[in-house]
Amino acid sequence: MGRATDRRVVLRVDLDAADGRTLTRRPDTLAAEEPLEIRVGAAGPARRRPLAVTMRTPGADLDLALGFLLTEGLIRSADDVSTAQLCAGAETPNTYNVVDVALAPGVPEPAVEASRQFLTTSACGVCGKESIEAVRTRSRYEVAGDPLTVAAELLAELPQRLRAGQQGFDRTGGLHAAGLFTGDGDLVVLREDVGRHNAVDKVVGWAVRERRLPLAGHVLLVSGRASFELTQKAWMAGVPLLAAVSAPSTLAVDLAAEAGLTLVGFLRGRTMNVYAAPHRVTG
Amino acid sequence: MGRATDRRVVLRVDLDAADGRTLTRRPDTLAAEEPLEIRVGAAGPARRRPLAVTMRTPGADLDLALGFLLTEGLIRSADDVSTAQLCAGAETPNTYNVVDVALAPGVPEPAVEASRQFLTTSACGVCGKESIEAVRTRSRYEVAGDPLTVAAELLAELPQRLRAGQQGFDRTGGLHAAGLFTGDGDLVVLREDVGRHNAVDKVVGWAVRERRLPLAGHVLLVSGRASFELTQKAWMAGVPLLAAVSAPSTLAVDLAAEAGLTLVGFLRGRTMNVYAAPHRVTG
Repeated sequence: MGRATDRRVVLRVDLDAADGRTLTRRPDTLAAEEPLEIRVGAAGPARRRPLAVTMRTPGADLDLALGFLLTEGLIRSADDVSTAQLCAGAETPNTYNVVDVALAPGVPEPAVEASRQFLTTSACGVCGKESIEAVRTRSRYEVAGDPLTVAAELLAELPQRLRAGQQGFDRTGGLHAAGLFTGDGDLVVLREDVGRHNAVDKVVGWAVRERRLPLAGHVLLVSGRASFELTQKAWMAGVPLLAAVSAPSTLAVDLAAEAGLTLVGFLRGRTMNVYAAPHRVTG
Repeated sequence: MGRATDRRVVLRVDLDAADGRTLTRRPDTLAAEEPLEIRVGAAGPARRRPLAVTMRTPGADLDLALGFLLTEGLIRSADDVSTAQLCAGAETPNTYNVVDVALAPGVPEPAVEASRQFLTTSACGVCGKESIEAVRTRSRYEVAGDPLTVAAELLAELPQRLRAGQQGFDRTGGLHAAGLFTGDGDLVVLREDVGRHNAVDKVVGWAVRERRLPLAGHVLLVSGRASFELTQKAWMAGVPLLAAVSAPSTLAVDLAAEAGLTLVGFLRGRTMNVYAAPHRVTG
Protein backbone atom coordinates (compact mmCIF):
# COMPACT_ATOMS: atom_id res chain seq x y z
CA MET A 1 0.00 0.00 0.00
CA GLY A 2 2.72 2.50 0.98
CA ARG A 3 0.31 4.85 2.61
CA ALA A 4 1.88 5.14 6.07
CA THR A 5 2.43 8.82 5.41
CA ASP A 6 0.97 11.32 2.98
CA ARG A 7 1.49 14.96 2.11
CA ARG A 8 -0.74 18.01 2.49
CA VAL A 9 -0.14 21.70 1.87
CA VAL A 10 -0.03 23.67 5.11
CA LEU A 11 0.23 27.27 6.13
CA ARG A 12 3.36 27.52 8.28
CA VAL A 13 3.25 30.29 10.85
CA ASP A 14 6.51 31.48 12.44
CA LEU A 15 5.97 34.59 14.48
CA ASP A 16 9.71 35.13 14.89
CA ALA A 17 10.87 34.16 11.40
CA ALA A 18 14.34 35.47 10.68
CA ASP A 19 13.33 36.53 7.16
CA GLY A 20 10.19 38.28 8.37
CA ARG A 21 7.93 35.90 6.44
CA THR A 22 5.49 35.02 9.18
CA LEU A 23 3.19 33.01 6.90
CA THR A 24 4.46 30.48 4.36
CA ARG A 25 2.63 27.87 2.33
CA ARG A 26 4.54 24.61 2.04
CA PRO A 27 3.99 20.87 1.79
CA ASP A 28 4.09 18.82 4.99
CA THR A 29 4.26 15.06 5.58
CA LEU A 30 1.55 13.64 7.84
CA ALA A 31 0.87 10.31 9.49
CA ALA A 32 -1.81 8.52 7.49
CA GLU A 33 -4.98 7.54 9.32
CA GLU A 34 -7.66 5.37 7.75
CA PRO A 35 -10.30 3.02 9.11
CA LEU A 36 -9.67 -0.72 9.02
CA GLU A 37 -12.62 -3.03 9.28
CA ILE A 38 -11.85 -6.46 10.71
CA ARG A 39 -14.28 -9.18 9.58
CA VAL A 40 -14.25 -12.55 11.27
CA GLY A 41 -16.18 -15.77 10.80
CA ALA A 42 -16.14 -19.40 9.80
CA ALA A 43 -14.26 -20.46 6.69
CA GLY A 44 -16.30 -21.13 3.58
CA PRO A 45 -18.57 -19.16 1.34
CA ALA A 46 -20.60 -17.64 4.18
CA ARG A 47 -20.27 -13.91 4.61
CA ARG A 48 -18.11 -12.93 7.54
CA ARG A 49 -19.30 -10.36 10.02
CA PRO A 50 -17.60 -7.03 10.79
CA LEU A 51 -16.19 -7.30 14.31
CA ALA A 52 -14.54 -3.93 14.79
CA VAL A 53 -13.38 -0.83 12.98
CA THR A 54 -10.13 0.68 14.13
CA MET A 55 -8.63 3.96 12.96
CA ARG A 56 -5.10 2.98 11.98
CA THR A 57 -2.09 3.83 9.86
CA PRO A 58 -2.12 1.56 6.79
CA GLY A 59 0.57 -1.10 6.68
CA ALA A 60 0.99 -4.48 8.40
CA ASP A 61 -2.80 -4.74 8.34
CA LEU A 62 -2.90 -8.52 8.50
CA ASP A 63 -0.63 -8.43 11.54
CA LEU A 64 -2.87 -5.76 13.07
CA ALA A 65 -5.91 -7.99 12.64
CA LEU A 66 -4.15 -11.10 13.98
CA GLY A 67 -2.76 -9.18 16.94
CA PHE A 68 -6.16 -7.68 17.71
CA LEU A 69 -7.82 -11.10 17.64
CA LEU A 70 -5.08 -12.63 19.81
CA THR A 71 -5.03 -9.88 22.43
CA GLU A 72 -8.82 -9.86 22.60
CA GLY A 73 -8.71 -13.59 23.31
CA LEU A 74 -10.54 -14.58 20.14
CA ILE A 75 -7.73 -16.70 18.69
CA ARG A 76 -4.97 -18.57 20.51
CA SER A 77 -2.42 -18.97 17.74
CA ALA A 78 -1.98 -19.00 13.98
CA ASP A 79 -3.56 -22.46 14.02
CA ASP A 80 -6.91 -20.88 14.84
CA VAL A 81 -6.88 -18.98 11.54
CA SER A 82 -7.68 -20.60 8.22
CA THR A 83 -7.03 -17.57 6.00
CA ALA A 84 -6.49 -13.85 6.53
CA GLN A 85 -6.53 -11.46 3.61
CA LEU A 86 -6.86 -7.83 2.70
CA CYS A 87 -10.05 -7.72 0.74
CA ALA A 88 -11.65 -5.39 -1.70
CA GLY A 89 -14.11 -2.90 -0.33
CA ALA A 90 -16.92 -1.37 -2.33
CA GLU A 91 -14.83 1.66 -3.26
CA THR A 92 -13.15 2.52 -6.52
CA PRO A 93 -10.20 2.66 -6.39
CA ASN A 94 -9.92 -0.19 -3.94
CA THR A 95 -8.88 1.17 -0.55
CA TYR A 96 -7.87 -2.16 1.00
CA ASN A 97 -9.38 -1.09 4.27
CA VAL A 98 -10.95 -4.45 5.11
CA VAL A 99 -9.23 -7.52 6.53
CA ASP A 100 -11.19 -10.73 6.23
CA VAL A 101 -10.25 -13.49 8.69
CA ALA A 102 -11.62 -17.01 8.24
CA LEU A 103 -11.33 -19.04 11.41
CA ALA A 104 -10.15 -22.64 11.41
CA PRO A 105 -12.79 -25.36 11.86
CA GLY A 106 -13.94 -25.63 15.45
CA VAL A 107 -12.85 -22.14 16.50
CA PRO A 108 -15.89 -20.36 17.97
CA GLU A 109 -17.04 -17.20 16.24
CA PRO A 110 -16.80 -14.11 18.41
CA ALA A 111 -19.88 -12.55 19.89
CA VAL A 112 -20.43 -8.94 18.88
CA GLU A 113 -19.79 -7.84 22.45
CA ALA A 114 -16.26 -9.23 22.33
CA SER A 115 -14.97 -6.10 20.66
CA ARG A 116 -12.49 -3.69 22.13
CA GLN A 117 -15.09 -1.15 23.04
CA PHE A 118 -17.64 -3.56 24.45
CA LEU A 119 -15.40 -4.92 27.16
CA THR A 120 -18.59 -6.48 28.42
CA THR A 121 -22.30 -6.09 27.83
CA SER A 122 -23.18 -7.54 31.19
CA ALA A 123 -25.61 -5.06 32.62
CA CYS A 124 -24.01 -5.30 36.05
CA GLY A 125 -20.76 -4.25 37.49
CA VAL A 126 -18.18 -3.33 34.99
CA CYS A 127 -15.34 -2.11 37.12
CA GLY A 128 -11.57 -2.25 37.16
CA LYS A 129 -11.53 -5.38 39.26
CA GLU A 130 -13.92 -7.28 37.07
CA SER A 131 -12.10 -6.28 33.90
CA ILE A 132 -8.84 -7.49 35.40
CA GLU A 133 -10.40 -10.80 36.33
CA ALA A 134 -11.81 -11.15 32.84
CA VAL A 135 -8.30 -10.75 31.43
CA ARG A 136 -6.84 -13.28 33.82
CA THR A 137 -9.28 -15.96 32.76
CA ARG A 138 -8.57 -15.28 29.11
CA SER A 139 -4.78 -15.04 29.15
CA ARG A 140 -3.13 -18.34 28.27
CA TYR A 141 0.27 -17.34 29.54
CA GLU A 142 1.71 -17.19 33.02
CA VAL A 143 4.29 -14.41 33.02
CA ALA A 144 4.88 -14.21 36.78
CA GLY A 145 7.43 -17.02 36.67
CA ASP A 146 9.36 -15.75 33.66
CA PRO A 147 13.04 -15.70 34.76
CA LEU A 148 13.93 -12.64 32.63
CA THR A 149 16.07 -10.01 34.30
CA VAL A 150 17.35 -6.88 32.58
CA ALA A 151 19.99 -4.46 33.82
CA ALA A 152 18.71 -0.93 34.31
CA GLU A 153 21.69 0.26 32.26
CA LEU A 154 20.44 -1.79 29.30
CA LEU A 155 16.81 -0.63 29.69
CA ALA A 156 18.00 2.96 29.59
CA GLU A 157 19.43 2.36 26.12
CA LEU A 158 16.27 0.95 24.57
CA PRO A 159 14.40 4.21 23.87
CA GLN A 160 17.17 5.44 21.59
CA ARG A 161 17.24 2.07 19.82
CA LEU A 162 13.49 2.34 19.29
CA ARG A 163 13.76 5.96 18.22
CA ALA A 164 16.44 5.07 15.65
CA GLY A 165 13.96 2.79 13.92
CA GLN A 166 11.01 5.17 13.87
CA GLN A 167 11.09 6.25 10.26
CA GLY A 168 7.48 7.40 10.26
CA PHE A 169 7.91 9.55 13.34
CA ASP A 170 10.92 11.23 11.79
CA ARG A 171 8.79 12.32 8.88
CA THR A 172 5.57 13.22 10.67
CA GLY A 173 6.05 13.62 14.42
CA GLY A 174 2.69 11.91 14.68
CA LEU A 175 3.24 8.17 14.97
CA HIS A 176 3.46 6.00 18.04
CA ALA A 177 5.87 3.06 18.06
CA ALA A 178 6.01 -0.33 19.73
CA GLY A 179 9.23 -2.31 19.70
CA LEU A 180 9.91 -5.88 20.75
CA PHE A 181 13.41 -6.51 22.18
CA THR A 182 15.21 -9.62 23.34
CA GLY A 183 16.40 -9.72 26.94
CA ASP A 184 19.81 -8.71 25.59
CA GLY A 185 18.37 -5.52 24.13
CA ASP A 186 18.32 -6.51 20.47
CA LEU A 187 15.40 -5.07 18.51
CA VAL A 188 13.33 -7.88 17.03
CA VAL A 189 10.48 -5.99 15.41
CA LEU A 190 9.22 -2.40 15.42
CA ARG A 191 5.84 -1.11 14.26
CA GLU A 192 4.41 2.40 14.02
CA ASP A 193 0.81 3.61 14.03
CA VAL A 194 -1.30 6.66 14.89
CA GLY A 195 -2.81 4.44 17.61
CA ARG A 196 -0.64 3.04 20.39
CA HIS A 197 -2.84 -0.04 20.66
CA ASN A 198 -2.54 -0.66 16.93
CA ALA A 199 1.27 -0.47 17.06
CA VAL A 200 1.24 -3.11 19.81
CA ASP A 201 -1.29 -5.26 17.93
CA LYS A 202 0.95 -5.14 14.86
CA VAL A 203 3.89 -6.41 16.91
CA VAL A 204 1.81 -9.16 18.52
CA GLY A 205 0.27 -10.12 15.18
CA TRP A 206 3.77 -10.47 13.74
CA ALA A 207 4.57 -12.85 16.59
CA VAL A 208 1.35 -14.81 15.92
CA ARG A 209 2.25 -15.16 12.25
CA GLU A 210 5.87 -16.10 13.03
CA ARG A 211 4.68 -18.55 15.71
CA ARG A 212 6.78 -16.86 18.35
CA LEU A 213 4.14 -16.82 21.11
CA PRO A 214 4.44 -16.68 24.04
CA LEU A 215 6.93 -13.83 24.00
CA ALA A 216 8.72 -15.13 27.10
CA GLY A 217 12.02 -13.45 27.87
CA HIS A 218 11.18 -10.39 25.77
CA VAL A 219 10.78 -6.69 26.48
CA LEU A 220 8.01 -4.65 24.85
CA LEU A 221 8.71 -0.90 24.66
CA VAL A 222 6.07 1.67 23.74
CA SER A 223 6.81 5.27 22.79
CA GLY A 224 3.99 6.85 24.80
CA ARG A 225 2.07 6.11 27.96
CA ALA A 226 1.15 2.70 29.37
CA SER A 227 -2.60 2.19 29.68
CA PHE A 228 -4.60 -0.73 31.01
CA GLU A 229 -5.20 -1.80 27.44
CA LEU A 230 -1.51 -1.98 26.48
CA THR A 231 -0.67 -3.88 29.67
CA GLN A 232 -3.46 -6.32 28.91
CA LYS A 233 -2.12 -6.86 25.38
CA ALA A 234 1.40 -7.50 26.72
CA TRP A 235 0.05 -10.10 29.13
CA MET A 236 -2.05 -11.78 26.45
CA ALA A 237 1.12 -12.19 24.35
CA GLY A 238 3.14 -13.54 27.29
CA VAL A 239 5.50 -10.55 27.55
CA PRO A 240 7.12 -10.38 31.02
CA LEU A 241 8.34 -6.76 30.85
CA LEU A 242 6.49 -3.75 29.43
CA ALA A 243 8.33 -0.43 29.33
CA ALA A 244 6.91 2.97 28.41
CA VAL A 245 8.61 6.25 27.70
CA SER A 246 5.84 8.12 29.49
CA ALA A 247 3.42 7.64 32.40
CA PRO A 248 1.37 4.55 33.28
CA SER A 249 -2.16 4.71 34.65
CA THR A 250 -3.29 3.27 37.97
CA LEU A 251 -5.09 0.40 36.28
CA ALA A 252 -2.06 -0.48 34.16
CA VAL A 253 -0.01 -0.74 37.36
CA ASP A 254 -2.64 -2.79 39.16
CA LEU A 255 -3.03 -5.21 36.24
CA ALA A 256 0.73 -5.62 35.89
CA ALA A 257 1.02 -6.34 39.63
CA GLU A 258 -1.76 -8.96 39.34
CA ALA A 259 0.02 -10.61 36.44
CA GLY A 260 3.54 -10.44 37.88
CA LEU A 261 4.45 -8.47 34.76
CA THR A 262 7.21 -5.91 35.18
CA LEU A 263 5.98 -2.41 34.30
CA VAL A 264 8.53 0.35 33.71
CA GLY A 265 7.43 3.93 33.10
CA PHE A 266 9.06 7.30 32.41
CA LEU A 267 11.98 5.48 30.77
CA ARG A 268 13.88 8.59 29.75
CA GLY A 269 17.55 9.43 29.77
CA ARG A 270 19.19 7.79 32.77
CA THR A 271 16.10 7.43 34.95
CA MET A 272 12.97 5.28 35.09
CA ASN A 273 10.24 4.18 37.50
CA VAL A 274 9.41 0.51 38.04
CA TYR A 275 5.75 0.17 39.00
CA ALA A 276 5.28 -3.58 39.28
CA ALA A 277 7.39 -6.75 39.62
CA PRO A 278 10.63 -4.76 40.13
CA HIS A 279 12.73 -7.88 40.69
CA ARG A 280 13.37 -8.14 36.93
CA VAL A 281 15.22 -4.82 36.88
CA THR A 282 18.73 -5.23 38.21
CA GLY A 283 20.93 -2.42 39.48
CA MET B 1 -15.32 10.73 43.74
CA GLY B 2 -11.92 12.46 43.92
CA ARG B 3 -10.19 9.65 42.11
CA ALA B 4 -8.60 11.56 39.24
CA THR B 5 -5.21 10.56 40.63
CA ASP B 6 -4.02 7.89 43.02
CA ARG B 7 -0.74 6.84 44.59
CA ARG B 8 1.37 3.73 44.20
CA VAL B 9 4.79 2.79 45.55
CA VAL B 10 7.42 2.68 42.80
CA LEU B 11 11.03 1.72 42.50
CA ARG B 12 12.80 4.83 41.26
CA VAL B 13 15.95 4.13 39.23
CA ASP B 14 18.48 6.91 38.71
CA LEU B 15 21.64 5.60 37.15
CA ASP B 16 23.48 8.86 37.75
CA ALA B 17 22.13 9.71 41.20
CA ALA B 18 24.29 12.28 42.97
CA ASP B 19 24.08 10.38 46.26
CA GLY B 20 24.92 7.04 44.64
CA ARG B 21 21.53 5.56 45.54
CA THR B 22 20.60 4.10 42.19
CA LEU B 23 17.41 2.39 43.45
CA THR B 24 14.92 4.09 45.76
CA ARG B 25 11.42 3.05 46.81
CA ARG B 26 9.03 5.96 47.02
CA PRO B 27 5.36 6.84 46.51
CA ASP B 28 4.33 8.25 43.14
CA THR B 29 1.11 9.91 41.97
CA LEU B 30 -0.54 8.35 38.91
CA ALA B 31 -3.39 9.25 36.60
CA ALA B 32 -6.40 7.16 37.56
CA GLU B 33 -7.89 4.96 34.87
CA GLU B 34 -11.15 3.06 35.34
CA PRO B 35 -13.83 1.79 32.99
CA LEU B 36 -17.04 3.74 32.61
CA GLU B 37 -20.07 1.96 31.25
CA ILE B 38 -22.59 4.20 29.50
CA ARG B 39 -26.14 2.83 29.52
CA VAL B 40 -28.79 4.40 27.35
CA GLY B 41 -32.48 3.79 26.78
CA ALA B 42 -36.01 5.03 27.14
CA ALA B 43 -37.11 6.63 30.38
CA GLY B 44 -39.17 4.51 32.73
CA PRO B 45 -38.69 1.32 34.65
CA ALA B 46 -37.30 -0.60 31.68
CA ARG B 47 -33.70 -1.66 31.97
CA ARG B 48 -31.36 0.43 29.85
CA ARG B 49 -28.79 -1.20 27.64
CA PRO B 50 -25.01 -0.80 27.90
CA LEU B 51 -23.91 1.16 24.85
CA ALA B 52 -20.18 1.48 25.36
CA VAL B 53 -17.41 1.05 27.89
CA THR B 54 -14.69 3.65 27.85
CA MET B 55 -11.48 3.60 29.89
CA ARG B 56 -11.45 7.00 31.51
CA THR B 57 -10.18 9.06 34.43
CA PRO B 58 -13.01 9.38 36.97
CA GLY B 59 -14.59 12.81 37.30
CA ALA B 60 -17.10 14.76 35.19
CA ASP B 61 -18.59 11.39 34.28
CA LEU B 62 -22.04 12.76 33.45
CA ASP B 63 -20.46 15.30 31.12
CA LEU B 64 -18.39 12.52 29.56
CA ALA B 65 -21.54 10.52 28.86
CA LEU B 66 -23.45 13.51 27.49
CA GLY B 67 -20.51 14.55 25.32
CA PHE B 68 -20.09 11.02 24.00
CA LEU B 69 -23.78 10.79 23.09
CA LEU B 70 -23.74 14.22 21.44
CA THR B 71 -20.58 13.68 19.42
CA GLU B 72 -21.77 10.24 18.33
CA GLY B 73 -24.96 11.87 17.05
CA LEU B 74 -27.25 10.04 19.47
CA ILE B 75 -28.60 13.15 21.18
CA ARG B 76 -28.93 16.68 19.79
CA SER B 77 -29.13 18.69 23.00
CA ALA B 78 -29.93 18.46 26.70
CA ASP B 79 -33.60 18.35 25.69
CA ASP B 80 -33.06 14.83 24.34
CA VAL B 81 -32.14 13.58 27.82
CA SER B 82 -34.69 12.90 30.52
CA THR B 83 -32.26 11.98 33.31
CA ALA B 84 -28.56 11.16 33.57
CA GLN B 85 -27.13 9.72 36.75
CA LEU B 86 -24.14 7.91 38.13
CA CYS B 87 -25.60 4.64 39.23
CA ALA B 88 -24.62 1.91 41.59
CA GLY B 89 -22.82 -1.05 40.11
CA ALA B 90 -22.83 -4.52 41.59
CA GLU B 91 -19.59 -3.91 43.49
CA THR B 92 -19.04 -3.21 47.15
CA PRO B 93 -17.91 -0.56 47.77
CA ASN B 94 -19.81 1.18 45.01
CA THR B 95 -17.40 2.19 42.28
CA TYR B 96 -19.74 4.59 40.47
CA ASN B 97 -18.45 3.35 37.15
CA VAL B 98 -21.83 3.32 35.41
CA VAL B 99 -23.71 6.28 33.94
CA ASP B 100 -27.36 5.67 33.22
CA VAL B 101 -28.95 7.97 30.64
CA ALA B 102 -32.71 7.97 30.14
CA LEU B 103 -33.70 9.53 26.84
CA ALA B 104 -36.57 11.97 26.51
CA PRO B 105 -39.83 10.67 25.00
CA GLY B 106 -39.58 10.33 21.24
CA VAL B 107 -35.77 10.17 21.08
CA PRO B 108 -34.80 6.99 19.24
CA GLU B 109 -32.73 4.46 21.13
CA PRO B 110 -29.30 3.89 19.62
CA ALA B 111 -28.55 0.78 17.68
CA VAL B 112 -25.71 -1.28 19.10
CA GLU B 113 -23.61 -0.48 16.04
CA ALA B 114 -23.71 3.22 16.83
CA SER B 115 -20.83 2.93 19.27
CA ARG B 116 -17.45 4.53 18.92
CA GLN B 117 -15.76 1.35 17.80
CA PHE B 118 -18.47 0.17 15.45
CA LEU B 119 -18.35 3.18 13.18
CA THR B 120 -20.53 1.05 10.97
CA THR B 121 -21.53 -2.58 10.68
CA SER B 122 -22.35 -2.24 7.03
CA ALA B 123 -20.57 -5.16 5.45
CA CYS B 124 -19.38 -3.04 2.54
CA GLY B 125 -16.98 -0.27 2.16
CA VAL B 126 -15.92 1.31 5.35
CA CYS B 127 -13.32 3.78 4.24
CA GLY B 128 -12.20 7.28 5.02
CA LYS B 129 -14.52 8.80 2.49
CA GLU B 130 -17.60 7.01 3.68
CA SER B 131 -16.87 7.76 7.29
CA ILE B 132 -16.50 11.43 6.47
CA GLU B 133 -19.80 11.44 4.64
CA ALA B 134 -21.46 9.72 7.58
CA VAL B 135 -20.26 12.52 9.83
CA ARG B 136 -21.47 15.21 7.49
CA THR B 137 -24.99 13.85 7.48
CA ARG B 138 -25.04 13.62 11.25
CA SER B 139 -23.53 16.98 12.19
CA ARG B 140 -26.21 19.57 12.91
CA TYR B 141 -23.87 22.49 12.66
CA GLU B 142 -22.40 24.32 9.74
CA VAL B 143 -19.01 25.62 10.82
CA ALA B 144 -17.72 26.72 7.41
CA GLY B 145 -19.47 30.09 7.67
CA ASP B 146 -18.40 30.86 11.23
CA PRO B 147 -16.87 34.37 11.09
CA LEU B 148 -14.31 33.68 13.86
CA THR B 149 -10.78 34.92 13.22
CA VAL B 150 -7.92 34.63 15.70
CA ALA B 151 -4.54 36.33 15.58
CA ALA B 152 -1.63 33.90 15.39
CA GLU B 153 -0.07 35.82 18.29
CA LEU B 154 -3.08 34.96 20.45
CA LEU B 155 -3.14 31.30 19.38
CA ALA B 156 0.52 30.99 20.37
CA GLU B 157 -0.41 31.94 23.93
CA LEU B 158 -3.13 29.35 24.40
CA PRO B 159 -0.94 26.29 25.17
CA GLN B 160 0.54 27.96 28.22
CA ARG B 161 -2.94 29.00 29.36
CA LEU B 162 -4.08 25.40 29.00
CA ARG B 163 -0.96 24.12 30.72
CA ALA B 164 -1.50 26.46 33.66
CA GLY B 165 -4.83 24.76 34.34
CA GLN B 166 -3.65 21.17 34.05
CA GLN B 167 -3.53 20.23 37.72
CA GLY B 168 -3.66 16.52 37.02
CA PHE B 169 -0.82 16.62 34.54
CA ASP B 170 1.33 18.47 37.04
CA ARG B 171 0.93 15.64 39.50
CA THR B 172 1.11 12.66 37.13
CA GLY B 173 2.54 13.58 33.73
CA GLY B 174 -0.06 11.19 32.37
CA LEU B 175 -3.22 13.15 31.61
CA HIS B 176 -4.36 14.70 28.36
CA ALA B 177 -6.24 17.98 28.43
CA ALA B 178 -8.87 19.67 26.30
CA GLY B 179 -9.62 23.35 26.78
CA LEU B 180 -12.38 25.50 25.34
CA PHE B 181 -11.45 29.14 24.74
CA THR B 182 -13.38 32.16 23.55
CA GLY B 183 -12.21 33.89 20.39
CA ASP B 184 -10.48 36.39 22.69
CA GLY B 185 -8.41 33.63 24.26
CA ASP B 186 -10.25 33.33 27.58
CA LEU B 187 -10.36 29.80 28.97
CA VAL B 188 -13.99 28.73 29.40
CA VAL B 189 -13.61 25.14 30.56
CA LEU B 190 -10.75 22.64 30.85
CA ARG B 191 -10.98 18.89 31.35
CA GLU B 192 -8.31 16.22 31.82
CA ASP B 193 -8.40 12.49 31.12
CA VAL B 194 -6.12 9.57 30.30
CA GLY B 195 -7.97 9.47 26.97
CA ARG B 196 -7.85 12.44 24.59
CA HIS B 197 -11.32 11.65 23.28
CA ASN B 198 -12.70 11.54 26.82
CA ALA B 199 -11.23 14.95 27.66
CA VAL B 200 -12.97 16.38 24.59
CA ASP B 201 -16.23 14.57 25.40
CA LYS B 202 -16.13 16.06 28.90
CA VAL B 203 -15.81 19.56 27.45
CA VAL B 204 -18.60 18.97 24.95
CA GLY B 205 -20.80 17.35 27.61
CA TRP B 206 -20.33 20.43 29.77
CA ALA B 207 -21.53 22.54 26.84
CA VAL B 208 -24.53 20.24 26.37
CA ARG B 209 -25.48 20.58 30.02
CA GLU B 210 -24.92 24.35 30.01
CA ARG B 211 -26.90 24.65 26.76
CA ARG B 212 -24.00 26.37 25.02
CA LEU B 213 -24.20 24.44 21.75
CA PRO B 214 -23.23 25.12 19.05
CA LEU B 215 -19.81 26.32 20.19
CA ALA B 216 -19.65 28.94 17.44
CA GLY B 217 -16.83 31.45 17.78
CA HIS B 218 -14.84 29.17 20.11
CA VAL B 219 -11.42 27.53 19.94
CA LEU B 220 -10.88 23.96 21.17
CA LEU B 221 -7.28 23.16 22.15
CA VAL B 222 -6.04 19.64 22.83
CA SER B 223 -2.75 18.79 24.50
CA GLY B 224 -1.77 15.98 22.15
CA ARG B 225 -2.31 15.04 18.54
CA ALA B 226 -5.38 15.71 16.40
CA SER B 227 -7.02 12.54 15.11
CA PHE B 228 -10.01 12.04 12.86
CA GLU B 229 -12.06 11.31 15.95
CA LEU B 230 -11.24 14.56 17.73
CA THR B 231 -11.90 16.57 14.58
CA GLN B 232 -15.24 14.84 14.21
CA LYS B 233 -16.13 15.67 17.81
CA ALA B 234 -15.22 19.34 17.28
CA TRP B 235 -17.46 19.49 14.22
CA MET B 236 -20.34 17.77 15.99
CA ALA B 237 -20.17 20.46 18.69
CA GLY B 238 -20.00 23.29 16.15
CA VAL B 239 -16.43 24.36 16.99
CA PRO B 240 -14.89 26.36 14.10
CA LEU B 241 -11.22 26.07 15.18
CA LEU B 242 -9.45 23.01 16.57
CA ALA B 243 -5.84 23.42 17.68
CA ALA B 244 -3.45 20.70 18.78
CA VAL B 245 -0.06 20.89 20.41
CA SER B 246 1.15 17.97 18.34
CA ALA B 247 0.62 16.42 14.89
CA PRO B 248 -2.65 15.87 13.03
CA SER B 249 -3.34 12.81 10.88
CA THR B 250 -4.23 12.89 7.20
CA LEU B 251 -7.87 12.04 7.89
CA ALA B 252 -8.16 14.78 10.50
CA VAL B 253 -6.92 17.28 7.92
CA ASP B 254 -9.24 15.96 5.21
CA LEU B 255 -12.28 16.03 7.49
CA ALA B 256 -11.48 19.56 8.68
CA ALA B 257 -11.14 20.72 5.07
CA GLU B 258 -14.52 19.13 4.23
CA ALA B 259 -16.14 20.89 7.17
CA GLY B 260 -14.45 24.26 6.67
CA LEU B 261 -13.13 23.82 10.20
CA THR B 262 -9.76 25.44 10.89
CA LEU B 263 -7.20 22.87 12.02
CA VAL B 264 -3.99 24.04 13.67
CA GLY B 265 -1.23 21.58 14.60
CA PHE B 266 2.20 21.68 16.23
CA LEU B 267 1.09 24.76 18.18
CA ARG B 268 4.31 25.16 20.15
CA GLY B 269 6.29 28.19 21.16
CA ARG B 270 6.09 30.79 18.43
CA THR B 271 5.26 28.48 15.54
CA MET B 272 2.30 26.47 14.27
CA ASN B 273 0.99 24.80 11.12
CA VAL B 274 -2.49 25.51 9.78
CA TYR B 275 -3.78 22.47 7.92
CA ALA B 276 -7.29 23.51 6.90
CA ALA B 277 -9.39 26.68 6.56
CA PRO B 278 -6.38 28.94 7.21
CA HIS B 279 -8.39 32.14 6.67
CA ARG B 280 -9.34 32.18 10.36
CA VAL B 281 -5.70 32.62 11.43
CA THR B 282 -4.59 36.21 10.95
CA GLY B 283 -1.00 37.38 10.75
